[in-house]
Amino acid sequence: MKLLEEKILNEGKVLEGGILKVDGFLNHRLDVALISELGADIAREFATSGATLILTVESSGISIACAAGEKLHLPVLVAKKHRSLNISDGVYTAPVFSFTHKVENNVVVSKEYLTAAERVLIVDDFLASGNAALGLLSLIEQAGAKAVGFVAAIEKSEQGGRALIEGKGVKVYSLARIKEMRVGDIKFE
Amino acid sequence: MKLLEEKILNEGKVLEGGILKVDGFLNHRLDVALISELGADIAREFATSGATLILTVESSGISIACAAGEKLHLPVLVAKKHRSLNISDGVYTAPVFSFTHKVENNVVVSKEYLTAAERVLIVDDFLASGNAALGLLSLIEQAGAKAVGFVAAIEKSEQGGRALIEGKGVKVYSLARIKEMRVGDIKFE
Repeated sequence: MKLLEEKILNEGKVLEGGILKVDGFLNHRLDVALISELGADIAREFATSGATLILTVESSGISIACAAGEKLHLPVLVAKKHRSLNISDGVYTAPVFSFTHKVENNVVVSKEYLTAAERVLIVDDFLASGNAALGLLSLIEQAGAKAVGFVAAIEKSEQGGRALIEGKGVKVYSLARIKEMRVGDIKFE
Repeated sequence: MKLLEEKILNEGKVLEGGILKVDGFLNHRLDVALISELGADIAREFATSGATLILTVESSGISIACAAGEKLHLPVLVAKKHRSLNISDGVYTAPVFSFTHKVENNVVVSKEYLTAAERVLIVDDFLASGNAALGLLSLIEQAGAKAVGFVAAIEKSEQGGRALIEGKGVKVYSLARIKEMRVGDIKFE
């Protein structure tokens, strides 16, 4: 998506260690008009997917998921992140390792809101190693529901997450797909 | 706001200890159509406020803040919650005690995105004791910016937060104002 690629080129910052900082429009300060356009693009791509629910994870995925949900007229389920495993009969949980923060969290959703009947579109801000995606896909599998797609605003292709998700038969769609990046230099696919 | 009051009466659950559970439409599963209406209502109330920025705190305030931001054509700044004090020259921080989780967190924003020129509208999901609001107001004061209002989707009047905020000369606006609640019984102002 041209609009997002230009924003990344103009305002994104590549830090040492393969971190892309998009704090100015996607993660910390949110450019709501841009995010609304991302939602419209996602809605066009998945208009005929039969999705009944959008699943995201707190907190950077929420704004994008809501923008897509508004356009697709779908509710959004926000998986919570917990350091400790939340032992409860009422929830599904899956471990997710964060490479950015070097910690393992658990993602958690209430069974009440993720049922076998749902056709789920996952929306997140980043796709890198695919770790978070696999955690969210595990929640969907545990519920006996079906994943109809995985959307990332920004994909870092080099880190290979796409193959893991596609290996599970789930379509991957990213709005900006970064082939390689170094400090001061970002190349898209 | 009638729509939200009805939703709370129909789907909210009052738990022991003064907790109002709105997981089904506001906190965990998000009713995006409803939240969009909340945003429109906030936008009508603050259309002439001169606000230049919306400030919220992760993660339950984000969806409501974005809905308001879309209607008011304003960006949203999301204060991050950290357990430990994030010592850095680049950020403003303030302590916030959570009565729900019985822990003290710090709310943190980058100085880069909260400058003295901003006129800030705070948007959050709940107003109870006003603790979170005071933390966010402190960030605005530290920046030398001006708060033009505080919005909560749901206010629990009994807990007195409103007076603390109004005492600082800031207008308070809540979309549903709960006078008292007990298990199975909710009364609005």
